[in-house]
Amino acid sequence: MEKLELSPLKNTQLDDPFWNKYTHLVTSQIIPYQWEALNDRISDAEPSHCISNFKVAAGLKEGTFEGAVFQDTDVAKWLEAVAYSLSYQPDKELEETADEVIDLIGKAQQPDGYINTYFTVLAPEHRWKNLREGHELYTAGHLLEAAVAYYKVTGKDKFLGIMRKFADLICEVFHTEEYKQAVPGHQEIEIAMIKLAEVTGEQKYMDMAKGFIDRRGTEPNYLVSEHKNPLWIDIFKDRNAFWPKYSQCHKPVRKQNTAEGHSVRATYMYSAMADLAAAYDDKELLDACERLWNNIVERRMYITGGIGSSGAYERFTTDYDLPNDSNYCESCASIGLALFSRRMSQVTRNGKYIDTMERALYNTVLAGIAMDGKSFFYVNPLEVWPDNCLDRTSMEHVKPVRQKWFGVACCPPNIARTLASLGEYVYFQKDGDLWVNMFVSGKTALTSGEGTLTVTQSTRFPFEGKVNLHVTSDRSCESTIAFHVPAYALNYKIEINSKEVSPEFKDGYAYLKGCFKDSDIQITFDIPARFTYANPNVRADAGKVAIEKGPLVYCLEEEDNGDKLANIYINTAAPLQEQYDSALLGGTCTISAKGKRISSMNEDGQGLYLQTPPAFEETSLKFVPYCYWNNRRAGEMSVWIKYYNQ
Amino acid sequence: MEKLELSPLKNTQLDDPFWNKYTHLVTSQIIPYQWEALNDRISDAEPSHCISNFKVAAGLKEGTFEGAVFQDTDVAKWLEAVAYSLSYQPDKELEETADEVIDLIGKAQQPDGYINTYFTVLAPEHRWKNLREGHELYTAGHLLEAAVAYYKVTGKDKFLGIMRKFADLICEVFHTEEYKQAVPGHQEIEIAMIKLAEVTGEQKYMDMAKGFIDRRGTEPNYLVSEHKNPLWIDIFKDRNAFWPKYSQCHKPVRKQNTAEGHSVRATYMYSAMADLAAAYDDKELLDACERLWNNIVERRMYITGGIGSSGAYERFTTDYDLPNDSNYCESCASIGLALFSRRMSQVTRNGKYIDTMERALYNTVLAGIAMDGKSFFYVNPLEVWPDNCLDRTSMEHVKPVRQKWFGVACCPPNIARTLASLGEYVYFQKDGDLWVNMFVSGKTALTSGEGTLTVTQSTRFPFEGKVNLHVTSDRSCESTIAFHVPAYALNYKIEINSKEVSPEFKDGYAYLKGCFKDSDIQITFDIPARFTYANPNVRADAGKVAIEKGPLVYCLEEEDNGDKLANIYINTAAPLQEQYDSALLGGTCTISAKGKRISSMNEDGQGLYLQTPPAFEETSLKFVPYCYWNNRRAGEMSVWIKYYNQ
Repeated sequence: MEKLELSPLKNTQLDDPFWNKYTHLVTSQIIPYQWEALNDRISDAEPSHCISNFKVAAGLKEGTFEGAVFQDTDVAKWLEAVAYSLSYQPDKELEETADEVIDLIGKAQQPDGYINTYFTVLAPEHRWKNLREGHELYTAGHLLEAAVAYYKVTGKDKFLGIMRKFADLICEVFHTEEYKQAVPGHQEIEIAMIKLAEVTGEQKYMDMAKGFIDRRGTEPNYLVSEHKNPLWIDIFKDRNAFWPKYSQCHKPVRKQNTAEGHSVRATYMYSAMADLAAAYDDKELLDACERLWNNIVERRMYITGGIGSSGAYERFTTDYDLPNDSNYCESCASIGLALFSRRMSQVTRNGKYIDTMERALYNTVLAGIAMDGKSFFYVNPLEVWPDNCLDRTSMEHVKPVRQKWFGVACCPPNIARTLASLGEYVYFQKDGDLWVNMFVSGKTALTSGEGTLTVTQSTRFPFEGKVNLHVTSDRSCESTIAFHVPAYALNYKIEINSKEVSPEFKDGYAYLKGCFKDSDIQITFDIPARFTYANPNVRADAGKVAIEKGPLVYCLEEEDNGDKLANIYINTAAPLQEQYDSALLGGTCTISAKGKRISSMNEDGQGLYLQTPPAFEETSLKFVPYCYWNNRRAGEMSVWIKYYNQ
Repeated sequence: MEKLELSPLKNTQLDDPFWNKYTHLVTSQIIPYQWEALNDRISDAEPSHCISNFKVAAGLKEGTFEGAVFQDTDVAKWLEAVAYSLSYQPDKELEETADEVIDLIGKAQQPDGYINTYFTVLAPEHRWKNLREGHELYTAGHLLEAAVAYYKVTGKDKFLGIMRKFADLICEVFHTEEYKQAVPGHQEIEIAMIKLAEVTGEQKYMDMAKGFIDRRGTEPNYLVSEHKNPLWIDIFKDRNAFWPKYSQCHKPVRKQNTAEGHSVRATYMYSAMADLAAAYDDKELLDACERLWNNIVERRMYITGGIGSSGAYERFTTDYDLPNDSNYCESCASIGLALFSRRMSQVTRNGKYIDTMERALYNTVLAGIAMDGKSFFYVNPLEVWPDNCLDRTSMEHVKPVRQKWFGVACCPPNIARTLASLGEYVYFQKDGDLWVNMFVSGKTALTSGEGTLTVTQSTRFPFEGKVNLHVTSDRSCESTIAFHVPAYALNYKIEINSKEVSPEFKDGYAYLKGCFKDSDIQITFDIPARFTYANPNVRADAGKVAIEKGPLVYCLEEEDNGDKLANIYINTAAPLQEQYDSALLGGTCTISAKGKRISSMNEDGQGLYLQTPPAFEETSLKFVPYCYWNNRRAGEMSVWIKYYNQ
């Protein structure tokens, strides 16, 4: 298996009417805001302590460590987002700040290469002694990913050098007798080691990633027994005892058939498994990836690309268990699903994985961030009734409005690094050939031994199914460009210089060969608003319908439709009407429908249980994209709506 | 306000085809089984330690206290159930055993009267120092209730004497300067003190109950600040910090408008408030009771009489928030609602409270116990899909099958004492007049200064709406008998010696005056199976219908209707068919209906989200009483069913 490569970000410049709304937030809002947060300068948020922790660990400041055991990852994800952002918006001052943070990380590094401010400051003798909860390898992984990103975009290798020294230490420690069965409690280091191997060409990092994956769930099961070590310390005192499925170490990864446990950990692990399947040509591992991906996508994924049906433990539950109002669907888990799906398409060249990657990105990941970049969802419900999202109830994990910042702030910087690296989702490349996965305006260049292929995309996708690509090439040979053919695209058609062509269609891509000296390629397809029904095994969606258009899932909001959305029925026999409203939510296509609703009653004295059936009245309905919900006023929201057909 | 009195159990002998199934279980199963449990002789259950704890506290055994802080209440509720059971099934051996337990309690009593094995053995210096969590007054209340019951049925006063000494200590301690604002964390002592006052005629106990109610939620708020005492100890280390609403001390009880917090605590408190409103002719307190009762019954109660919408903290949430699958609806909370409603009808003489009392008893309380008396529900969902009732998820409090016994075993003995005292729900009396609240076969006698009125009920209620009462009286004067007129009873008609009479109908009772020397009274009414709709504010039930017959709520079970009950729609235009099946579930009326269901699909390769609407097929449906669910095989169950009308 030869894995397709991500197009280097520095070769891609996106400039898209749909995505600019978000990618510009990364540079204008999130990175500056988070920098203030990392330095505890946000007056109405809990202090982050992040930079302070590094200063204390470096001996530059008196004091102690404060925050969560994985607090360092906020700095890592910030640096990773900064790195990506510099590829599309160079900023000398920001780069200098980043360099200073990197210097600080270097100063906090221990002589043997170790970096982790919690353990360095608070518990040096407990280093690597609680892998279940300590998040040391997880934190190392995020710093390593940041270092690779910074090197790839800026070409500067100081951070990479610092982190490589730490990676060398990890490779050494985790091959000693004591740690030869050890694996991380929260997967992430595997992805990072693979990236380090790819950027340095050093095989031992790839082998370390493979070691962590191979050991996982095998006997003796390190995570199950490590607490017997007298140096083990209990970090998350308020949590239930560890259980293996939570961390996907209940059986060897190659024997796993269903997506289990904490959904972020799971998808990060599956992502590494896909990479390793390609790197080692490991068919058994790829089979496991396919089984796990199928289990998610065919039985355990929300229509929004959200995963994790249970609020408790942020976890997968059972097949077809997809409650809409009490789910977790962490933003980070959908990022994990996008990462896993992207890798599966890199490895298999099958566009169906891109469909799921898009589902996660266009819906849950974007819903995770407000359109002003100032607030975020951790949990992404598909149905919200604000009145019952109460603290100290079973619903307390569900917030009816986005939150400013989090104590455990994984989602905001994770969304930021994802948006800032969007180019890596849009294009793949291999041996001079280009894969166009997503329809996003902008430019990319692919230089190979034969010369350079330049592609300029121009589109109003996802609201219109029309993509213009101007392609130039200075190569003497033919090039191949593969265009993703989304499952939802009807009447997909490609024209070159206004003449329809017949490309080879294979596994969700249309393969076009040509010299492309100066070609105008136009892809057109229909993406009418459509009714989507859930598999009848999904109890929560029985009798309900959702509306999608292209990759976007739509929803009803109280703002447009009044409250008690549960009382609404849509008439699927009436046509859906689409309308682009440039004044709404920064410009969006809305969808109108006809239906009926249960008439409201006066509140008092009517009683709770009645012998007369409720009355209905006709109603018009207005749907907006799910990713834009809760950007106006707080209120009810629902994706799945009752329906009738007459 | 003059409160109607409960008919003394020793004057009532119930013998009813519907209720015998359950009341016989109390004597044949529950009391003997629990006795074994209290003595740690059940091999496959966690040891209870109850008797052992009393022996240790009495100095009769080496060892320590084990179990929950309120472990003593298991003994109390067992003794209370034993007391009631002796009223309808005398058992010399059982009574001797009870006497021995009472002797043991006496030996475990401290010289000053104090009884509590946890604090006596483990933490004597922390007595009364954590009223939030220590459950000392709650435990004292249950022991006191048991002592009153034992005295009333057997006439023996030893237990009452022991407990009266403890009650005197409580009255003393809780009037000292330190405790003058103190109230229990878990209400219960108030009910018990009122019972003690009623049985002894001693006003100070009534005043103590009133004191606890009057202080509650007033400043300085004792429960909010007691942890500042250096002798305070943290008992429930795994729980969130205390918050006032949980224990209904967020404001003075007379200012409370909505039912809040832990639903058992709430209803026990409201029950005491109703009693005190009558005892002190306290209109303001009665107004609060009415507001709180209305808030529950009009906005926060399930159709099954279950309360407590949130699995976390077993608590009330917000108006109309009644999720069917993730609710708590603890069996004990419905017992609390029945106790509160019974008292409201005693105080106001309004039969509407009896309707709600019946709703709780006939549905949730009975569902709480298996028909073989060997297993119990703590949590009573209205919709169950066993696959998603998983441990370590948001659904882990919901068990798809009844459990054998519980670590915190409040529900089984609470159900037992309720069933064993059913006679107190059936009849009230006052000044020689009789109130017939429930239609339950059996006999009662009411002796007053004028002579004795004897009533023998004979009925197949709730399956048939026909009640025969043979009444005799040796009084020279007229007597009044009030018959409850349930809200669900149509064409309610009373005949005396085959001649229709016109009683006075008032507030849900029909008042019949007569000499009743030797009268046959026949009450007939129609209780056809009926469709019931929820108020449109209840999001969870929108588009759904439930089926009731008389006081019984019905449900679909997988056993009769296959799985995926969420895919079923009932046709409300088709008539409901009732059939009595003597072979089913010990004899029950089933209800058949017509409908349609979403056709199933093969599991594999169909995908989760589909562009074609699901197909429907016609189906016949069979409903059984909710109280009998899960008495055959485990499977799906649902009370609220989607409907159409055509």
